[in-house]
Amino acid sequence: MSTALVVLDLVGIAAFALSGALVAVRKPLDVFGVLVLAGATGLGGGFLRDVLIGATPPAALQDWRYLLVPFVAGLVAFRFHPALGRVEREIAVFDAAGMGLFCVTGAVKSLEYGLEPPAAALMGMVTAIGGGVIRDVLAGRVPVVLREELYAFPALLGAILAVTADEAGLHGGWVLIPGAVFAFTYRMVALRRGWQAPLPPGMDGY
Amino acid sequence: MSTALVVLDLVGIAAFALSGALVAVRKPLDVFGVLVLAGATGLGGGFLRDVLIGATPPAALQDWRYLLVPFVAGLVAFRFHPALGRVEREIAVFDAAGMGLFCVTGAVKSLEYGLEPPAAALMGMVTAIGGGVIRDVLAGRVPVVLREELYAFPALLGAILAVTADEAGLHGGWVLIPGAVFAFTYRMVALRRGWQAPLPPGMDGY
Amino acid sequence: MSTALVVLDLVGIAAFALSGALVAVRKPLDVFGVLVLAGATGLGGGFLRDVLIGATPPAALQDWRYLLVPFVAGLVAFRFHPALGRVEREIAVFDAAGMGLFCVTGAVKSLEYGLEPPAAALMGMVTAIGGGVIRDVLAGRVPVVLREELYAFPALLGAILAVTADEAGLHGGWVLIPGAVFAFTYRMVALRRGWQAPLPPGMDGY
Repeated sequence: MSTALVVLDLVGIAAFALSGALVAVRKPLDVFGVLVLAGATGLGGGFLRDVLIGATPPAALQDWRYLLVPFVAGLVAFRFHPALGRVEREIAVFDAAGMGLFCVTGAVKSLEYGLEPPAAALMGMVTAIGGGVIRDVLAGRVPVVLREELYAFPALLGAILAVTADEAGLHGGWVLIPGAVFAFTYRMVALRRGWQAPLPPGMDGY
Repeated sequence: MSTALVVLDLVGIAAFALSGALVAVRKPLDVFGVLVLAGATGLGGGFLRDVLIGATPPAALQDWRYLLVPFVAGLVAFRFHPALGRVEREIAVFDAAGMGLFCVTGAVKSLEYGLEPPAAALMGMVTAIGGGVIRDVLAGRVPVVLREELYAFPALLGAILAVTADEAGLHGGWVLIPGAVFAFTYRMVALRRGWQAPLPPGMDGY
Repeated sequence: MSTALVVLDLVGIAAFALSGALVAVRKPLDVFGVLVLAGATGLGGGFLRDVLIGATPPAALQDWRYLLVPFVAGLVAFRFHPALGRVEREIAVFDAAGMGLFCVTGAVKSLEYGLEPPAAALMGMVTAIGGGVIRDVLAGRVPVVLREELYAFPALLGAILAVTADEAGLHGGWVLIPGAVFAFTYRMVALRRGWQAPLPPGMDGY
């Protein structure tokens, strides 16, 4: 289980890092801006969670593979961005997988650090959306997860599922898999069908 | 005393959350963006203080009422923003009350965590303005407390009063109330009279 | 050694604070905005490092000189910004010196807190560029170190030199000085010759 989790974790970080790097390439930022955005997007959500729950230094700073993956993803995006742009829909699948994974692992880690279930579910969502929020703030735009993309809600629901399963006394994959699969599936359907979250009443003509 | 403090704390957080949610409604962000901005504005200042002084996980993550209040405030603002927009001056009163409270409680908490008086006063100000700064950064605008609103200065003075009272050996309400009342009153007068902080010499024609 | 380090540290913080204050003056922000940007730019990189490596409260919150220096720098910039604007190239020298110092001291402090060498080098870079990134985010612009200035790369190389020297068993100045001098020199040459980091292939016509 553990090896599978690390591999999935790194795949999710790579997808997040690619999304950050592609935003940077399109500004365009320079090569170091691309690498910084790749790193901040790939690792930022976990950093934010770890700093808030008091799990410092963050796990990613204690394992070189977590630093290498966004670095390589950033270089690849810098060099091959036209080709990557053509497979952006495929990258979105890995990004959704990363989101599904991070919302449940973030929630479970927060429970392990003593947070109550509602706070742990919230931290699961923060883990999943934090990197994208940091990416957009650094790139000078309002975070897309707050205005266009149905992203935070699937992450929150996935985290709630994981917290509920944990509270119900389940273990291991029974805690992680249902929430991760649900969040991933919801996100993919929302992407394919163009679902968006409701705008405030009276403001949807903008 | 303690119950009164918690109630005031929650009222201040609700006012901050409403201000964040109204900014989000007017962008407009979607319902999740409104909720995230409500939460980040209501709780962000305290989170920032707790992370900096090493008081993690932040208190608000250990008490579900602190999560429920911004959530409800965000939903109310999402649904009833036209009505809320008409009572925005009244919301500003509660916002000023929250600011007055947070600057003194933030300063005292920082003293309790071993900070020296000048740093504790600064952390009191950070507690009071942090949520608004995060709100504006997420909404893609330069923080209003840095350019338009006389807000940071009353918060800093209130925090200095609280730190000074604590250093003088006073206790409980004698530490908290003068600074809170002063910061609140100063802020309200500044709001009503349209006081603004001075611009750099030669730049006020902008 | 220690006194020299503190003096250099404060000189670097002053230069960073001046750069933050000048950005604020030119928006223009008001006097409190100028002071907040001076403080955030001068101390933000160290705060970010200390929060990430778990060294809270940050050292600067435990020594009033570290709070006084950006405060005074902010006031000076507010009042005398036209004169400061004329010596901006000279300020850039001190800024480069601060960058050179912070990348090595940040890396060494991170090693002391148990980080592995690659993560420590990264944290050295974060220490050196963090204040400028926070400055630009608060001022509503995409961080210049990500798109225009050759700044992050010298900082990273300087941090790598320091980490390598430490790993090689060297001590004191032998760890700090080569990396600091290298980063400073590289930065100064880049500034004088207008070197910029490469843009993504195909995007350099923007």
